[in-house]
This record gives sequence, C-alpha cells and structure tokens, in this order.
Amino acid sequence: MTSSYAPTPRTTLKRLPKRGAFDRETVHRILDEGLFCHLGFAVEGQPYVLPTIYARVEETLFVHGSAASRMMGSLAQGLPVCLTVTLLDGLVLARSSFHHSMNYRSVVVLGKAQEVTGAEEKRRALDAIVDHVAAGRSGEARGPNDKELLATRVLSLPLEEVSAKVRTGPPLDDEEDYSWPVWAGVLPLRLVPQPLVPEPRLDPTIQPSPVVTGWKR
Amino acid sequence: MTSSYAPTPRTTLKRLPKRGAFDRETVHRILDEGLFCHLGFAVEGQPYVLPTIYARVEETLFVHGSAASRMMGSLAQGLPVCLTVTLLDGLVLARSSFHHSMNYRSVVVLGKAQEVTGAEEKRRALDAIVDHVAAGRSGEARGPNDKELLATRVLSLPLEEVSAKVRTGPPLDDEEDYSWPVWAGVLPLRLVPQPLVPEPRLDPTIQPSPVVTGWKR
Repeated sequence: MTSSYAPTPRTTLKRLPKRGAFDRETVHRILDEGLFCHLGFAVEGQPYVLPTIYARVEETLFVHGSAASRMMGSLAQGLPVCLTVTLLDGLVLARSSFHHSMNYRSVVVLGKAQEVTGAEEKRRALDAIVDHVAAGRSGEARGPNDKELLATRVLSLPLEEVSAKVRTGPPLDDEEDYSWPVWAGVLPLRLVPQPLVPEPRLDPTIQPSPVVTGWKR
Repeated sequence: MTSSYAPTPRTTLKRLPKRGAFDRETVHRILDEGLFCHLGFAVEGQPYVLPTIYARVEETLFVHGSAASRMMGSLAQGLPVCLTVTLLDGLVLARSSFHHSMNYRSVVVLGKAQEVTGAEEKRRALDAIVDHVAAGRSGEARGPNDKELLATRVLSLPLEEVSAKVRTGPPLDDEEDYSWPVWAGVLPLRLVPQPLVPEPRLDPTIQPSPVVTGWKR
C-alpha cells in the first residue's frame, strides 16, 4: 500500500494547494482524533448534512444508524456520500479583517457506502464505533444482542477518494498592515473534558475505570 | 414574526421527534455559539461537505469565500445547500453499547444561497463574520478595502427552512441493564481557550484588547 491517497480532480484543491494533504498518516490522525463527522448526501437534488459518530478500521470508515431510518436505507442503496471530519485548533486573528481565519484540520472522504450485513462483521464495526468515542469502552459495556444488531444498520465507506486540509500557524498579513496597532496572533482552542456526571441511578460504589478517567483526545 | 420556524416534511424528524426543536430562540442560540458550519452542496450528483465560517444577522446567515472559488460561484447560482452547525456537549456513556450516544445541539438550514452584491451590504456581512468569531473584532482590525471586497464573494441564506436537534441529559439504559457493573453517565466536553500565541512580528508593547482577552463561547 502506498503511503498516500491518489489525488483526483474532485479532491484536488484549486486554491491554496499547500493546505492540501494526501498522506495516510495525516488523514488517519485527523480521523482518529475527531469524535463525530458530518455526513452529506443528496435526495432529489437537495443536500443534507447530518452529524454522526463513526470509526476508522484500517482503510474503512463505519457509520451506524437505526434500521428504521430512511436516511440509512437510502445510503445503503449506494447513494454518493461525502463524509467530513473537522478539528478546530484555534482562531487566527490578523491585523486586517480580510486575513482572519481559523486553524483547523479536516478530512473529506468521497464515495459510496455499502451495508455491512454479517452479524460478526456488524458486531466488530459497532465495537469499533464505541471504542472510537472512548478507547476500551466496548470491553466493559454490555455488548449488542441479536435484537439490537437487527435494529441497527451499519454502513462502510472505503478510504479511497480522500483528502485532508490543514491550516496552522500565525496570521499572515499584507506587508503594509504590520504596523496596524492591534494585537495579532492565534487564540488556540481545545476540547477539554469536564468533571464526570454520574447517571442518577448509578450504584455509588461503582467507580469509573481508566477507560473513562483516562479519556483524552 | 412567529416565535418558531414552520416545520416542513424535509425538516421533520421521523424518529425521536422529542429531540427536534423549531423555536427561533433555540435555533439562534446554537447558531450564535457555533464557530463554523459544514456547508453541503451537490455537483453532478456528488455531495460535498466543507467547513466554513458564517455569521447570523437576524434571520439571515452569511458565508464568504474567494471570488475565484468555483464552489462559491456555483453556490451563487442558486444551488440548493444545507448548512449545518453542531455543538458537541459531551459523551453519553451508557451501560450497554447500544445506548451510547453524544450530547449535542445542532441546527440544519435548507435553502438556496443568494449573492450579496452591494458594497455596503458586503462590508456589513464581512464585519458580522469577523464579529461572529470574536465579538467586537471588526472594530479594531483594519477593515476590508475595495480590492478585498472585490476578491471576496458573500452569500446569504435565509433562515426559513430550519430545524434544531438537541440531546441532553444522562444515558437511558434498558431496565435489565441498570445492574450491569460499569460506570455510566456523561463526560461533558467544552471548547476552552488556551494561552494566546502572539504573531512573531507583533510589537511587544501591544497588548490584546478585551475583544481577545475576554473571548468566550
């Protein structure tokens, strides 16, 4: 396997090409750090963009939903989709309004989803989705039973037509603006875990495991 | 003006309808707290979902991009779009894998974008976008000049076909799982500002104003 995804006309940046990246390591790292994606599909010409959880297993992404969901049913028919994951790293405060921006890392995956039908394959995908959110959680939660497996549709999307886009670093201003008398720089942002909120009926003798107490991104 | 958006078949939730919301206050609050959106559109049947900055001014959303961008050009022609804003509030760790979820608030806006052409209207929209990211910043940064205005395309999207979706609170498990011996509850997440990183050429005597030091979400 090559170390990069092959750019296609649909994934090649026309402007600011230096922000584009196609190497698997960058793409995988963004996909593994993201917690949820935005999944886009079109029905009768109208696009829809919905947030949903996902997981990466090697070169395949998995998403899941209710077997009763019309969206999941349509996607399983092989509708073209776009799955986008964006991580916000900071606000880029330039001296000019024009050069304000954000530091971010995003991945865009184009393709068609396929339904995962085998019970064992579904189970592995669902474990991967739970573990994507909190590594190790599938080993301590009660796993899916047959009824739940039937009620859940799992879709796979291969990492084939993929690109990443990354902006980092300070603002870049026009030369004549460097004397503009205002603070300029980056205001970094981080997603930080807050104190745990136990479920009201939780047995107070049950402590969270390292899966929960050691959670980080 | 009524206090709610009228649901349409395209914005009505088929499942878990109690998570849906159409009142303007909920929608506005989510749109004003979000920092960027995911904008979806389809070209030759292929959906694309891209992160971009936006601003709300009353019942209109504004997005902007390079006048040279093919995407912005297509959108300005009145292509149907979906603009989605999602705020992640926490991980919902249930006793069963099946009931794992996330607490989140999202808004989905369907419609067609229109190009904003008047120079003054464009300027106001661009100021709104800068102020959306950091309230008051348009008053201290160097504002857009004529060349920058020409190089920027601004699109407006009316808040007409709009819905919000909100999940809050603890995990809900099946009755027989409440005795499962694992910690269950919510791991709240928050986007937290980190220490400022001044631009390398910044005059060290320039201090950040309250626009920057008081930034919060």
